[in-house]
Amino acid sequence: MTATIHTICVVGGTGAEGGGLALRWAKHGHRVIIASRDAAKAKAAADELNARLGGGTAEGADSASGVAEADIVVLTVPYQAQIATVQGLKDALQGKILIDVTVPLVPPKVTRVQLPETDSCVVAVQTLLGDGVRVVSAFQNVSAHKLKDPDYAIDCDVLVAGDDKEARATVMQLAVDAGLRGIDIGPLANSVVSESLTSALIWINKFYKIPDAGVRITGLP
Amino acid sequence: MTATIHTICVVGGTGAEGGGLALRWAKHGHRVIIASRDAAKAKAAADELNARLGGGTAEGADSASGVAEADIVVLTVPYQAQIATVQGLKDALQGKILIDVTVPLVPPKVTRVQLPETDSCVVAVQTLLGDGVRVVSAFQNVSAHKLKDPDYAIDCDVLVAGDDKEARATVMQLAVDAGLRGIDIGPLANSVVSESLTSALIWINKFYKIPDAGVRITGLP
Repeated sequence: MTATIHTICVVGGTGAEGGGLALRWAKHGHRVIIASRDAAKAKAAADELNARLGGGTAEGADSASGVAEADIVVLTVPYQAQIATVQGLKDALQGKILIDVTVPLVPPKVTRVQLPETDSCVVAVQTLLGDGVRVVSAFQNVSAHKLKDPDYAIDCDVLVAGDDKEARATVMQLAVDAGLRGIDIGPLANSVVSESLTSALIWINKFYKIPDAGVRITGLP
Repeated sequence: MTATIHTICVVGGTGAEGGGLALRWAKHGHRVIIASRDAAKAKAAADELNARLGGGTAEGADSASGVAEADIVVLTVPYQAQIATVQGLKDALQGKILIDVTVPLVPPKVTRVQLPETDSCVVAVQTLLGDGVRVVSAFQNVSAHKLKDPDYAIDCDVLVAGDDKEARATVMQLAVDAGLRGIDIGPLANSVVSESLTSALIWINKFYKIPDAGVRITGLP
């Protein structure tokens, strides 16, 4: 079996989490487009990523152009920008898989779970986009700065939720391609688990004075 | 330092989860009262537990009498009975620690997270009881039938949430006394994590065809 190579557009890829994922996927051989509202900033981030990999093939683009090129789009913007960003890309996203990494953190109390009225902020995105986009929730619990070291073995699972089984399987493979283990946690509504867990992990980091609490699912073969 | 011995009343202790916790705490040396609306049923469960331990000191009682005797009360009733049970014990619970193990499962879709309007069903209990009771959320993610084997090393952490730090520390020690590891995950609002996680673990059990998915927090010393 030949590995599938995707064109992955990381919206918000100039940030730490998106940049780390982009780096790992580019290293694996995926075509990666770092996208931002500011195309020049995106291009600079792609250049830096390529330099770090010593010959990566990342590209930079404005968000609309990047999304148009991709078959998989990853959303890594702050919660406060999530809905507006998705609204602006609604037409371009049709037919694609959208991996939403958004965590509903409400500063200043980021160590306290504060869920939106819809319980899951990713479910709100699926509702906004409609059935033409397969929204999958993933990567909310992975430490951004450890992603940035492409060879670091991160001790954290990726909880993958979505209403389309095939899309979940695709995203679980992308977790593997990024050096992680994906765990299927079922329907998109179950994204509440990973969305709320991030606040608890930030709490744990502070309470136990550790840098990178993570999560593992046990009992699997 | 001498270990603290508590009198622990397990309301709903005739069920699998409560019975397993009662067994492990009795084995550790705590005074355990199994409580139920049906005192005879509670006494039969205590007798069975003592027989299993070959000389345990568990007792059975109706819920009100059991709670009156205890310094720590554990609530392990079905979600549908949670509020009514707590309402009936409100006065008896004042001044005590209440460990709420309730998971907001709404059959038949128990593999899907369906949070109550208050987001966390344990937070609703704290609101009902007022500040005179220190409510702590714990043990939602531990497989009941593995608790029933007192020597089995369960590969699952106990996520402990509550608004009182000392009460959280007490419950973390009770996790240790039951042969588990407690993890402080902060304020009671963060109980959303463990309450939602149970549905995901049930999903994982079905999806991966395994009996007992659990959770571990990584990154701790």
